[in-house]
Amino acid sequence: MIKVSVLYENTEGKKFDKAYYFSKHIPMVKQKLGAACKRVDVDQGLSGAQPGSKPAFVAMAHMLFDSVDAFQKAFGPHADTVMGDIPNYTDIQPVIQLSEVKM
Amino acid sequence: MIKVSVLYENTEGKKFDKAYYFSKHIPMVKQKLGAACKRVDVDQGLSGAQPGSKPAFVAMAHMLFDSVDAFQKAFGPHADTVMGDIPNYTDIQPVIQLSEVKM
Repeated sequence: MIKVSVLYENTEGKKFDKAYYFSKHIPMVKQKLGAACKRVDVDQGLSGAQPGSKPAFVAMAHMLFDSVDAFQKAFGPHADTVMGDIPNYTDIQPVIQLSEVKM
Repeated sequence: MIKVSVLYENTEGKKFDKAYYFSKHIPMVKQKLGAACKRVDVDQGLSGAQPGSKPAFVAMAHMLFDSVDAFQKAFGPHADTVMGDIPNYTDIQPVIQLSEVKM
């Protein structure tokens, strides 16, 4: 199992429209990825380790797939649509990472 | 539900003993947190968005709790033990974030 993580760094002076992200972008991505995407976790940053401190990331999404190949086959045809929607809610350049799920 | 994420940035010249982390540190943390920790996800970085590129994080752990209070009550008594184990596998200073689980 692999995980595709998309992390939005909490950067001073950048915008992030949470309402659009949670209610429009994520549902659209889930619909485009279809059954190949086994799970989607979406988080909104609260704080750092200390209560009241600034979170490092304003939001994170983690999507599970059976393999890198399964992700690429599901995402490839919709990459332009998904990436093209990002400016509708943020001007933060997301950090994208593929990971192996260890547990 | 809240998520505590611990992210280890993939930093040039830093060590990260994956065997120790996966087989000693994470099981110890799970044991210390007990039933308050509802789920633990642990990932090992594979790549960035492009195959073969360097992942931003060498490893990430995500732990779910019912509330910030539940996390603090479970983690507080073991904070010194858990944080004190970090030098046994890495000299990377982890990024720690608390998030609200949105979906």
